[in-house]
Amino acid sequence: MAQMNYLTQCTFDFGALAQLPKVLKAHSVTKPFVVTDPGLKANGLLDTLLAALAEPPAGVFTDTPANPTESASEQAAAAYRASGADGIIAFGGGSSMDLAKAMGLMVTHEGPFERLGGSQRGMRHITKIPPLIAVPTTAGTGSEVSPGAVVILNNGRKETFVSAFLVPVAAVCDPELTMGLPPFLTAATGMDAMTHCIEAVLTPVVHPPAEAIGLDGAERINTWIERAVKDGSDRDARWHMMMGSFQGALAFAKGLGAVHGLSHALGRIHELKLHHGTLNAVILPHSLAMIGDAQPEKFARLRRALGLGPNGDLAQAIRDLNARIGLPASLSAMGVTEAHWPSTRDYAVSDLATLSNAIPFDGEKYDELFKRAL
Amino acid sequence: MAQMNYLTQCTFDFGALAQLPKVLKAHSVTKPFVVTDPGLKANGLLDTLLAALAEPPAGVFTDTPANPTESASEQAAAAYRASGADGIIAFGGGSSMDLAKAMGLMVTHEGPFERLGGSQRGMRHITKIPPLIAVPTTAGTGSEVSPGAVVILNNGRKETFVSAFLVPVAAVCDPELTMGLPPFLTAATGMDAMTHCIEAVLTPVVHPPAEAIGLDGAERINTWIERAVKDGSDRDARWHMMMGSFQGALAFAKGLGAVHGLSHALGRIHELKLHHGTLNAVILPHSLAMIGDAQPEKFARLRRALGLGPNGDLAQAIRDLNARIGLPASLSAMGVTEAHWPSTRDYAVSDLATLSNAIPFDGEKYDELFKRAL
Repeated sequence: MAQMNYLTQCTFDFGALAQLPKVLKAHSVTKPFVVTDPGLKANGLLDTLLAALAEPPAGVFTDTPANPTESASEQAAAAYRASGADGIIAFGGGSSMDLAKAMGLMVTHEGPFERLGGSQRGMRHITKIPPLIAVPTTAGTGSEVSPGAVVILNNGRKETFVSAFLVPVAAVCDPELTMGLPPFLTAATGMDAMTHCIEAVLTPVVHPPAEAIGLDGAERINTWIERAVKDGSDRDARWHMMMGSFQGALAFAKGLGAVHGLSHALGRIHELKLHHGTLNAVILPHSLAMIGDAQPEKFARLRRALGLGPNGDLAQAIRDLNARIGLPASLSAMGVTEAHWPSTRDYAVSDLATLSNAIPFDGEKYDELFKRAL
Repeated sequence: MAQMNYLTQCTFDFGALAQLPKVLKAHSVTKPFVVTDPGLKANGLLDTLLAALAEPPAGVFTDTPANPTESASEQAAAAYRASGADGIIAFGGGSSMDLAKAMGLMVTHEGPFERLGGSQRGMRHITKIPPLIAVPTTAGTGSEVSPGAVVILNNGRKETFVSAFLVPVAAVCDPELTMGLPPFLTAATGMDAMTHCIEAVLTPVVHPPAEAIGLDGAERINTWIERAVKDGSDRDARWHMMMGSFQGALAFAKGLGAVHGLSHALGRIHELKLHHGTLNAVILPHSLAMIGDAQPEKFARLRRALGLGPNGDLAQAIRDLNARIGLPASLSAMGVTEAHWPSTRDYAVSDLATLSNAIPFDGEKYDELFKRAL
C-alpha cells in the first residue's frame, strides 16, 4: 500500500477502500457526509462505499450534476448542515469532488459564493473547509489532489475556485473502483489526465518537481491507456491509469493552458453537455501544433516520454492516440458549430488556465485554436 | 520566483534570501533564533543572512559541529530557551539543519532525547516543533525539505530522527549562497544529492511521483555537476545543483538504501571526520554493481536519465563522474582501513536506510560492499 504525502495524503492501491474508516479516524471525522452522483447510486458503487464504512454516514447527497452547479452545491450544503456531519467524503469523478469542495466552502464561508471565485481573486478569502476525504471512481480529473474546483455559477459563468484549503486532506485511490468504467469514459478521462500532464509540463512556470511528475505521468498514460480502454478488466492498466491521473493533478500545481481555457468555455454550452476530458483530448493536438516548438527543450522531453524520435510530431502522436482509443477527431463531431463561438470566446480568454499557457494566448489565438479544433 | 508547495513551502531562485522576512512573517515568527556553523560565521555568509533580516534575531548559535551531536544540540536548546525566540532559522548545510531540528525537538519534547530516535520507533512520540525555516548554503543534503535529522547521541550512536513534524515549514533556497562553495565541497555535496536521487529511485517502495522527481534530479545533477565544480561562478550550474539537491530530498520520501547505511556507519569514526557526501559518492558505484540489474526497469530508466545507452554500465558511469570531479576512488583513499570495520558493521546493518535498500542487505552483504569500496 503506497503512502504518498505531498500536497495531500494518499493511500493508493487495490483494496485501498478498506482503509477508509482508518483515514476518517486519522482526520477525526466521526460523522461523514457523502457527496456523489446518480450514476454511482444506480450502478451499485455507492453501496460498495457504504459497506466499507464502519457505520452509516451522517448523510448522502446523490444529485451531483454532470457539470457541478452553484445551485446543486447549495442543496448539498443545506443537507450537510441538517445532518450534523463533521467531515466530507467526495465519492466519484471530478464532478462529485468539485461539488463537495463547493459545498465545503458554502458551509464555512459567509457572503455571496462567487466572491470566492478565482476571477474575483477569491483565494484571499478562502480558509479552512471541513475535512474532505476524496475517493475517486474515475482516473482522469485528479481532483482528489488538486487545489481547484470548477463550478457553474447561478449567473451562468463557469468559475474556477482555487486554494490550498481545497486540497482534500486525504485521498483514498482504489483502482478497483474504476474496473467498471466503460471504454469511452476510460479513454476520455484518461486523455484528461494526459492533457493535465502535458499542459503542466509546457507552462512556463518554474517548478521542476511538478514537471518531472508530469513527464512521468504522460509516459505512463501513453503506455497503458490503450490496454485500459481495450480490456477494462486489466488490473495493471487500471492501476497505472489511476496513478497517471494522480500524477497529472500533482503536475498541474504548475498551471495549465489554453486547452483547458477552451475546454472550460465550451463546457458552458448547456444543450450539448460536452464531456470535459473528451474536449481536452480533441483540442490538445491543435494546441500543440500552435505552440509549435516554442519550448524546444520541453518538447524534446515530451517526445522522449511518449517514445517518439527526436523529430517526432507530438501533435500527430496525440491525434493518432485519440483515434486508436475511439475518441472523436473534431469538435464538430461532438456537435459544436461555429455559431457556438461568439458566446463562449470571452470565457476562454478570461479563463484562469489561459494565464499559464505555454505561449501568450489572446482572443485571436483562441479564434485559431477553435477553428483548427472544429 | 518559483513557489513549490509539496511537503513544504519553498521559495527558490537567485535573490530568494530577500524574501526571508516575508516568509518569517507568514509563519508568525517575530523573534527567530539562528542555528549555523563556525565556517559561515568566518566566511561572512552569516552577516549576509543577518543583513537580510529586518531586525536582529533573538539569538544566534554558531557552534554546529561537522556532524551534529546531542550535546551541541543541548547547548543550542539552552540558548534558544534563554533567548525568548518563537521560531528557528536553520542556516547552513545538512549539519546546521539537522542540529536545528534536534534543538527544536528538545525545546518541545520532555524526557530522554534518544527515545525520539528512529531505532526506538520514536516517530510515535514526535509532535510539533517551533516553526523552522531552512536556508541552505550547500546543494546536497536536501535537509531543507526532508523529514529527517541525523544526530550522534551522547551514547555514541548515530541516530536518525524522522517525522513529518521535522519538515521545515518553509525553505528559502537561494543559489547565490552556494556561489562560494569550493570545488571539492561542490562535488561532494552534489554527489550526496545524486545518491539521494538514485537510491530513492531504486528502493522498492511504490511512490511514482517521488521516483519521477528522483530521475529528473539525477539527470539534472549529471548534466550540471561538472560545470559547477569547474567554474563555481557559473550561475546556471549553481541553480541546477541546488534544484537537484531539493529534488533529491523530495525523492527520498520513498526511502534510501545501503549506500546511506554504510555511509552513516562510517561517519561515526570520530578521528577521520569523514564527509557524508564524499562517502556516498565513493560507495555508490559499488552498491550499484552489487544490485546488478535486479530491477531492470528502474536501471533502464536511470540509464536513460544519465544519458547512457541501453547497455550502459551505471556503476562505471558514476565511477567515471567521481573521477572527473576530483572525488576519491576508494574508502582507503579517505583513510578508512579494515580495522575500522568490526566496530561499524552493526551500525550499518541496523541503519534505517538498510530497510529500504533495492535488494535485501544483511551483514554479509555489507561485508562485501565495504570490501569493494575499501
